[in-house]
Amino acid sequence: MLAADAASRGLGMVLERVGPGTAEVSMLVRPDMTNGWELCHGGLIATLADSAFAVACNSYGEVTVAAGFDVTFLESGRAGDELLARAQERARRGRSGIYDVTVFRRGPDGEPGDVVAEFRGRSRSLGRPIPGLA
Amino acid sequence: MLAADAASRGLGMVLERVGPGTAEVSMLVRPDMTNGWELCHGGLIATLADSAFAVACNSYGEVTVAAGFDVTFLESGRAGDELLARAQERARRGRSGIYDVTVFRRGPDGEPGDVVAEFRGRSRSLGRPIPGLA
Amino acid sequence: MLAADAASRGLGMVLERVGPGTAEVSMLVRPDMTNGWELCHGGLIATLADSAFAVACNSYGEVTVAAGFDVTFLESGRAGDELLARAQERARRGRSGIYDVTVFRRGPDGEPGDVVAEFRGRSRSLGRPIPGLA
Amino acid sequence: MLAADAASRGLGMVLERVGPGTAEVSMLVRPDMTNGWELCHGGLIATLADSAFAVACNSYGEVTVAAGFDVTFLESGRAGDELLARAQERARRGRSGIYDVTVFRRGPDGEPGDVVAEFRGRSRSLGRPIPGLA
Repeated sequence: MLAADAASRGLGMVLERVGPGTAEVSMLVRPDMTNGWELCHGGLIATLADSAFAVACNSYGEVTVAAGFDVTFLESGRAGDELLARAQERARRGRSGIYDVTVFRRGPDGEPGDVVAEFRGRSRSLGRPIPGLA
Repeated sequence: MLAADAASRGLGMVLERVGPGTAEVSMLVRPDMTNGWELCHGGLIATLADSAFAVACNSYGEVTVAAGFDVTFLESGRAGDELLARAQERARRGRSGIYDVTVFRRGPDGEPGDVVAEFRGRSRSLGRPIPGLA
Repeated sequence: MLAADAASRGLGMVLERVGPGTAEVSMLVRPDMTNGWELCHGGLIATLADSAFAVACNSYGEVTVAAGFDVTFLESGRAGDELLARAQERARRGRSGIYDVTVFRRGPDGEPGDVVAEFRGRSRSLGRPIPGLA
Repeated sequence: MLAADAASRGLGMVLERVGPGTAEVSMLVRPDMTNGWELCHGGLIATLADSAFAVACNSYGEVTVAAGFDVTFLESGRAGDELLARAQERARRGRSGIYDVTVFRRGPDGEPGDVVAEFRGRSRSLGRPIPGLA
């Protein structure tokens, strides 16, 4: 799914893991992703989290879209930082779902370090299978 | 300010208007901004709104950052659509502010048409002047 | 509608105005509505806004429920303050709607003064008429 | 702290547990807490969650206030239901914090059952100790 997503691909996102209701997506902050303060544009941090959310909420095989999301920024990202977005389903009821995504800055050992942002996505299933998935 | 913002520039954003507590920023949806459903990636719609929010909340000359935002998606965008984000201050108290941004799809006449997304940003002033502004 | 709402009635809420997509509801902060800091409990400020939201989003005659809301607190309320919640539809698409509610503290002249809270509600219509409305 | 909170006390809230960054508060839905649809007023469900959030974010002994919150409703509550709000710190940085609160309907065995609402609170510490705490 992320492979067919030109936007995520263009931002260099890498799908690291996917499971039922979960996903991990990473992104290296490039100089062309920074804003006027030389910090990673908050919108692009949200875009990374949104991609992890999209993979997680579509992991059950039903076409599911984002109805909206809320994000809070806790730390800045800089060019050269590697960010990891970890999405986890929190609740589902009928066609609605809530997914929490934490965006970490990776430490030198590749492990998740400081929390850069907390994101909560609201999903809506369209009630039909994702085409092309067996 | 948007000129020094590599991320917004790379996404082709154009600052159309700025005033005290307000800003308008437009963006043409390119094929490389779409997701696996061939729709504009929601994160990039939020990024457009976030840029308009950043210009509006910095319009008073004090360094101001985004503490977070909430966005709700109402319509999809497609490659070729021109989106217009209109930011408007809603409330300020001390160093905190709330800014509403509506993202429109432009009609053939260039005027704002369907509402694509409603965004609400939470800002925090750092209490020091923006360097380089006289 | 507010008349049949035991919770709003018990909190002394008064419906001051209603129109298509809009409503105004007021509430006097009583001592039994304050928290441990002797300030109006934030949840009750949100409850006031939620009631105004409910009246506004049901004003078209279709049963409509709150899917959720976000609230930001800007000022405190104290016992004796009269609060006024003014709800206004911001966007609707299909069965989904967004309503903004500003909660004001009334001044000595009864006019809306300081902004106490900004609330944004997300509504969902159930697609059937409100029973008992002609 | 909840004992000094007239609003929570008037709503019959009971503090069941508190620990560093966590709290559990329960509330029996009374007939005078229902709205025009005979369901628990969403604002009061949010008020319950807000009280659990307040206890959790003040558990470190510093005066901490709610800057705002977001809530999503998943199930309804009815008169006679016992609701349990379980608050858990999610992230803190400087004076800002994020707390997640899940509101459950208790089953016949008193254990948390269906999820009624998901709440995310944004806190702000005032940087001074809570008076009266040794």
